[in-house]
Amino acid sequence: MIDKLAAKIQKTHAPVVVGLDPMLGYIPEHIRQAAYAECGETLEGAAEAVWRFNKEIVDCVYDLIPAVKPQIAMYEQFGIPGLMAFKKTVDYCHGKGLIVIGDVKRGDIGSTSAAYAAGHIGTVEVGSKSYRPFDEDFVTVNPYLGTDGVKPFVDACREGGKGLFILVKTSNPSSGEFQDRLIDGRPLYELVGEKVAEWGRDCMGGSYSRVGAVVGATYPEVGKALRKIMPKSFILVPGYGAQGGKGKDLAHFFNEDGLGAIVNSSRGIIAAYKQEEYASFGERHFGEASRAAVEAMVKDINGALQAAK
Amino acid sequence: MIDKLAAKIQKTHAPVVVGLDPMLGYIPEHIRQAAYAECGETLEGAAEAVWRFNKEIVDCVYDLIPAVKPQIAMYEQFGIPGLMAFKKTVDYCHGKGLIVIGDVKRGDIGSTSAAYAAGHIGTVEVGSKSYRPFDEDFVTVNPYLGTDGVKPFVDACREGGKGLFILVKTSNPSSGEFQDRLIDGRPLYELVGEKVAEWGRDCMGGSYSRVGAVVGATYPEVGKALRKIMPKSFILVPGYGAQGGKGKDLAHFFNEDGLGAIVNSSRGIIAAYKQEEYASFGERHFGEASRAAVEAMVKDINGALQAAK
Repeated sequence: MIDKLAAKIQKTHAPVVVGLDPMLGYIPEHIRQAAYAECGETLEGAAEAVWRFNKEIVDCVYDLIPAVKPQIAMYEQFGIPGLMAFKKTVDYCHGKGLIVIGDVKRGDIGSTSAAYAAGHIGTVEVGSKSYRPFDEDFVTVNPYLGTDGVKPFVDACREGGKGLFILVKTSNPSSGEFQDRLIDGRPLYELVGEKVAEWGRDCMGGSYSRVGAVVGATYPEVGKALRKIMPKSFILVPGYGAQGGKGKDLAHFFNEDGLGAIVNSSRGIIAAYKQEEYASFGERHFGEASRAAVEAMVKDINGALQAAK
Repeated sequence: MIDKLAAKIQKTHAPVVVGLDPMLGYIPEHIRQAAYAECGETLEGAAEAVWRFNKEIVDCVYDLIPAVKPQIAMYEQFGIPGLMAFKKTVDYCHGKGLIVIGDVKRGDIGSTSAAYAAGHIGTVEVGSKSYRPFDEDFVTVNPYLGTDGVKPFVDACREGGKGLFILVKTSNPSSGEFQDRLIDGRPLYELVGEKVAEWGRDCMGGSYSRVGAVVGATYPEVGKALRKIMPKSFILVPGYGAQGGKGKDLAHFFNEDGLGAIVNSSRGIIAAYKQEEYASFGERHFGEASRAAVEAMVKDINGALQAAK
């Protein structure tokens, strides 16, 4: 799957992932009202609004990008109906040829991580049958529990060919509280980065490992250091756009082959119609506004990569 | 809810929580076969087996204990049907008067953690209506992202009266890989413990904070140190029994009032019938084996607490 991701990035010329994080406040009034008219102001109604919103955005951008990243929390908040909309979104995106990164940030002790890995990127056995319940292509993983909490996810990737992005340095303001603390003179995130490189070593695709990392766009100098520590790991870079990261900050996250990183934008794309720059599309044409925002993001990032050459 | 937990511990004389982590391998053959006969060897069939297994255990132990801790991964691995069994279990346990600790180990950037908090221990708004989708009483939270990733959970507790257990030192063998690393001469878990105390300070119930911590039974000396750092936090202690923790290791996790800690056992209780000690109950009477195992665990822990006085 990491090879497929690299190939799709090269084909689309877009090292970009669209974050499908559909907070209700981002969803245009007419979509919400239509969903509530059909399902009521219920969890099912919220989930239906989320699904209609996602579908229109995916229909408008799928040919421009290699991958999407649904944030499961935005679905899980609506309980079972919300999670059904998550699964429907995963399947729909697969149907459109997109790679799906499930932003689930799971992580637990070994036997429990194995259950998460089975449910999201592996298979579960029920009697004589086997199933792929959520069936994302990649998931994000939290490393706080150490190797035995991460290993079952790595094993699932080795067996099934799927991939991971492990949290190393997150994009949020207080990420430094623990992640930046110095251990033997080096920040914790560097130690986690070294472990990512180690975990990924026996789980290689062609040029890159199936074990990648999450490093926030908001910390470009950190990206530069971690790029060297994990040369074979793809870096999923959140924090572009609404969280403050800019194209010019991103060159150091990439390798010289122009690969090795994929930059996520969520709000900046899916709620583009709410920004002054794209307001002329109007709420009814929110999908086209998202398409224009993707095009601008791709141009910004490719421009920065060219300038850095 | 933290006051309710303390009161229920005092009433049952059992600082004990039963972990409802129903791996299929723990579920007796006759339960699995009955579920598959009804629903097929499908995700629905697996979920039905899980639910029947849980119900019989809960029916057999609910009067002995204050709380249960379903591990959501064991349900999530079976996709949507599995998560429906999770929700059914939460509701059934509430009906039996039990406190439910959702072992979800979520944690993300601020806006995303807010969505998790809303879905699990808070409310979501849909139009003019509001809902409590999963409605556990406590959840476990991963602190790797720092204050702004934890704060939305704390805020939900302040507003709705529910509670948290934040991962500080986990019970698994490789928990030390990052958690034990020294920062200014002190292990990371102590810094996280200090933050737990700080986050909990303005979120107090009566004698205890709504913000508790997870500290593994497998590291008793660590428990002793953290007990002092977080005097107002309840400690959820996993790792008893099957993972190696014993009653005599646990006294230091408690305060002098006999409160402040609640010890979890999962496999040791729900799969008791598979142990030599309880094998005489037979597979058909697995619920009674679980009841005997709870009684033995309560005796072991209370004995250790008495001996430590």
